[in-house]
Amino acid sequence: MRVVVPYRVSDPKTRLAPVLDAEERVAFSRAMLDDVLAAVRGTDHAPEVLATEPLDAELPDPVAVDARPLTDAVNAVLAAAKEPVAVVAADLALATPAALERLFDADGEVVLAPGRGGGTNALLARHPEFRVDYHGASYRDHRSACEAVGARAATVDSYRLGTDVDEPADLVEVLLHGEGAASEWLRDRGFTLAVNGGRVGVRREGE
Amino acid sequence: MRVVVPYRVSDPKTRLAPVLDAEERVAFSRAMLDDVLAAVRGTDHAPEVLATEPLDAELPDPVAVDARPLTDAVNAVLAAAKEPVAVVAADLALATPAALERLFDADGEVVLAPGRGGGTNALLARHPEFRVDYHGASYRDHRSACEAVGARAATVDSYRLGTDVDEPADLVEVLLHGEGAASEWLRDRGFTLAVNGGRVGVRREGE
Repeated sequence: MRVVVPYRVSDPKTRLAPVLDAEERVAFSRAMLDDVLAAVRGTDHAPEVLATEPLDAELPDPVAVDARPLTDAVNAVLAAAKEPVAVVAADLALATPAALERLFDADGEVVLAPGRGGGTNALLARHPEFRVDYHGASYRDHRSACEAVGARAATVDSYRLGTDVDEPADLVEVLLHGEGAASEWLRDRGFTLAVNGGRVGVRREGE
Repeated sequence: MRVVVPYRVSDPKTRLAPVLDAEERVAFSRAMLDDVLAAVRGTDHAPEVLATEPLDAELPDPVAVDARPLTDAVNAVLAAAKEPVAVVAADLALATPAALERLFDADGEVVLAPGRGGGTNALLARHPEFRVDYHGASYRDHRSACEAVGARAATVDSYRLGTDVDEPADLVEVLLHGEGAASEWLRDRGFTLAVNGGRVGVRREGE
């Protein structure tokens, strides 16, 4: 099985702009990538990075570059693969080896880890004809895609894999449940939990 | 083991007021309760409702009334219990028997199912001294409470149990992943997914 981690190099995580400037978003996004790669390495599998352009830092893992949009780049990998392929988003800052193993070990010709707001945060494709479409409500669309090619779909019920980090409110999850570089990065930059009524938010020192 | 489902009868789900009027919030909250109770019944356990006031409708499950705030009412149950107690929020519209069984079967003297934004959506207390505090970042506080009484804490990693329904964006999760009365209720009232950029939202017919 191959485990591919798509990674957008330039201008990542634009929806975090209200709380992080452009340079910080690059660094934070990179910290999350490091956490995801470490979690994959903690399973029996080796990650491969699928980056939109060359990385400016060395990684212990192979990096392939494909400048096309995410959907096209992942589908090129799926079309060429001779074995099962897992695709794990680079912003799953809560991912652990145990959570990923549940994905990798699940039955099903296509296994989906749904993300908040209709996304597909991770998947495992064992069916040769399955292709991804990350636009819109991709979880629903991926289930339809399974039906269209006759692939038996399954879902992995994981809070850790279901939590992608796109918006300021998601930083709460990293602070509370993250165990790696991304949560450390946030703490180093002065982020702490802000407890008011309702759901907990984040605040930054001096703000 | 007892399984207690706390339920607020009057003026529930106030944060859904932007999309549901007061009467609708009562009905939707009740549909979610029905789903949670059905999910518990689908395990080897029988649910008990812990309501803030008498319900105006018959339920097949026992209903206890305690008008005190949630934390006090739950702690009274924990203090009186001679056996392990699970506490499952009434707004887990994605709960399934399989997800609940993972909570009920997990090791640990206190097992926590974290919810979005720092909450504790479900827990299982096997330690006689553990008490809850649902204010603020309860997941973090419950972990501290375990340390304070020397209870071995564990976490169950479940997207379904991690998804409580408080805010309009949460309705997306019910429409996408719900399989019971709550998702049917939303569909009957004209709610559908609204697919734009980023995370998927909801829209209502005629709006």
